[in-house]
Amino acid sequence: MTTQELYERIAHPTLLLDEAKCKRNIANMAAHARASGVRFRPHFKTHQSAKVGEWIRAEGVTSIAASSLRMAAYFADAGWDDILVAFPANWREIDLINSLASRIRLGLIVESRETVRFLGSHLQHPVDIWLDVDTGYHRTGIDWQAKDEAVGLAGQISASPMMRLRGMLTHSGQSYKSHNHAEIKAVYDESVGRFNSLRDHLAATGFTGLEVSLGDTPSCVTVQDLSAVEEVRPGNFVYFDWMQVVISTCTADEVAVALACPVVTKNAERNQIVVYGGGVHLSKDTFVDLKGRATFGAVCLPTDSGWSDPFEDTYVVSLSQEHGVLQVAPEDFDRIAIGSLVCILPVHSCMTADLMKTVVTLNGEELSMLHLEAL
Amino acid sequence: MTTQELYERIAHPTLLLDEAKCKRNIANMAAHARASGVRFRPHFKTHQSAKVGEWIRAEGVTSIAASSLRMAAYFADAGWDDILVAFPANWREIDLINSLASRIRLGLIVESRETVRFLGSHLQHPVDIWLDVDTGYHRTGIDWQAKDEAVGLAGQISASPMMRLRGMLTHSGQSYKSHNHAEIKAVYDESVGRFNSLRDHLAATGFTGLEVSLGDTPSCVTVQDLSAVEEVRPGNFVYFDWMQVVISTCTADEVAVALACPVVTKNAERNQIVVYGGGVHLSKDTFVDLKGRATFGAVCLPTDSGWSDPFEDTYVVSLSQEHGVLQVAPEDFDRIAIGSLVCILPVHSCMTADLMKTVVTLNGEELSMLHLEAL
Repeated sequence: MTTQELYERIAHPTLLLDEAKCKRNIANMAAHARASGVRFRPHFKTHQSAKVGEWIRAEGVTSIAASSLRMAAYFADAGWDDILVAFPANWREIDLINSLASRIRLGLIVESRETVRFLGSHLQHPVDIWLDVDTGYHRTGIDWQAKDEAVGLAGQISASPMMRLRGMLTHSGQSYKSHNHAEIKAVYDESVGRFNSLRDHLAATGFTGLEVSLGDTPSCVTVQDLSAVEEVRPGNFVYFDWMQVVISTCTADEVAVALACPVVTKNAERNQIVVYGGGVHLSKDTFVDLKGRATFGAVCLPTDSGWSDPFEDTYVVSLSQEHGVLQVAPEDFDRIAIGSLVCILPVHSCMTADLMKTVVTLNGEELSMLHLEAL
Repeated sequence: MTTQELYERIAHPTLLLDEAKCKRNIANMAAHARASGVRFRPHFKTHQSAKVGEWIRAEGVTSIAASSLRMAAYFADAGWDDILVAFPANWREIDLINSLASRIRLGLIVESRETVRFLGSHLQHPVDIWLDVDTGYHRTGIDWQAKDEAVGLAGQISASPMMRLRGMLTHSGQSYKSHNHAEIKAVYDESVGRFNSLRDHLAATGFTGLEVSLGDTPSCVTVQDLSAVEEVRPGNFVYFDWMQVVISTCTADEVAVALACPVVTKNAERNQIVVYGGGVHLSKDTFVDLKGRATFGAVCLPTDSGWSDPFEDTYVVSLSQEHGVLQVAPEDFDRIAIGSLVCILPVHSCMTADLMKTVVTLNGEELSMLHLEAL
């Protein structure tokens, strides 16, 4: 089906994927990692789709990251045999850990002696272990300055026949507070410096050859030379989103997904337009744009081959369960008609894709994603 | 399976439903509506489950509300034949509107001449039409003071053989800014007063017998005498959530759903604990609690028959895609162990239920919910 035929058919919120933009994003990131000579281990939590995974495999990628063990199982079923679960090892899924470890090269991340002890007594197959290190984001991981703690953990890990200490890992999520490449670079440099300090200490106490794995899309995309680390794990780059545009990681033209939403009401007094497309579609994630406005997404119009550039001063100002409220610049008000569609670039494509469960290419192909059972 | 057996089995985020609490919530709201002599048209967007719908039917309910036409189709398939879609009529789903109108008593809401004109020329079967009136929430609806506009719309609607002007409707979402019953009552009274003013004007111009339908859970649950309106459409009451506790609509003990989450890391320096349960499970909806803290949920512990009262000063302080970060009072820190479960009362149960797609009763029964196809 053509893109025009697809737009004619769309009756409810539909997550569109521009396959060409997505493939270009993949090729760019793969080339960038190759140029730096680092392993490219893309995080698949953004797309969660076996088909998009195939596009990535076509770039020569063989190792990936997932954000849950069940996501890892889905991609193992899709033929991936080197998967790092970049979420703290969850004791309660030990059966799934063992089943995955029996069939693929599985990587786990740990930060506590309790978890290492648990794994040591429950693992039935060898796994790679990465030390989760907090280099400044303060979500998980041992503090990069807690060197004795790191040495203690490394020793405990190395004492287990089922655990191979592979390296150290972080997600420098603080890069999302940046607004330009220099600020992102500063976060990257700080993380690398902290990693190196800890790596040197571990090496001096006998734990040599440890790799460093770094994960945030802003750093991985914009830092020119990534060779200070062994591995990069960006995920969001595959689709990008409005947040990445705001912090200068990508241009609006590189955002590969947009939520097509029917327009249902208009209010000329408030210069607001309501679309069918709310928090259950876009997610309630919000971000402050360069003009200081808290937004839930940028607004574009459908075109014959995809969607337009986003409006400058028309944006998603609030969301209810099914309602999206657009704050509309007066000059744009008449350009958006009841019964037509707008295309919203989501603030956070990982969340939107997870909510929508299916992406639809611009020629109408539906790409299925990971589906989770309740128990 | 017993609740203890269920908890032993839970390995990943799982949305638990306390069936007894849910049925009590349903019985209480049904009795409250009966006592006021108003029609009880529960909004099914919170639970989206045919099974929970059956519990509601057992209270004698025969008319319901849905937040989308596809949700209405799901419940029509489940035997409901009087459904109001409490979302602005969406032109692009006219085929679904006609298909539903051919088999059930379908209600639609409108606020613009364009939409009435569109419906007038495309409807193939009769539908009930409700005027969407803005009594103060400022999301959708014509302003309650725009009396000439209302008369014009009423005339346009009445001129169509396929549209029966049934009444006026609002969602007084501003009640969620309240903190006690008196404030909620003031919102209700204001809405009713504004409705009556518009109703009187419409009656004086020949549009008599119009009903008023009011929808927010805070008003419908806490206002003692609802008889000023003809119909109430609460939805959230079926599960309640932490937001409703904060604004005094219910007690914590009445919240019927909790997200069971495995504990994965602890950080004693920050008094933070990370659980497996993030924005893709709870949603990124947040609410400021009575102590002025922006929270994503209240934290309880599993018990033999459900979950405990929530901790006073331990709460969900932030969410990533899969991570939930608990800010933990020092005295609670040792009560939450890695590998154990916590039960989180979500800030907004409608969003959490929608994300989780399945609720699991405390004896392990999985209740399926509406599942949407992409195109």
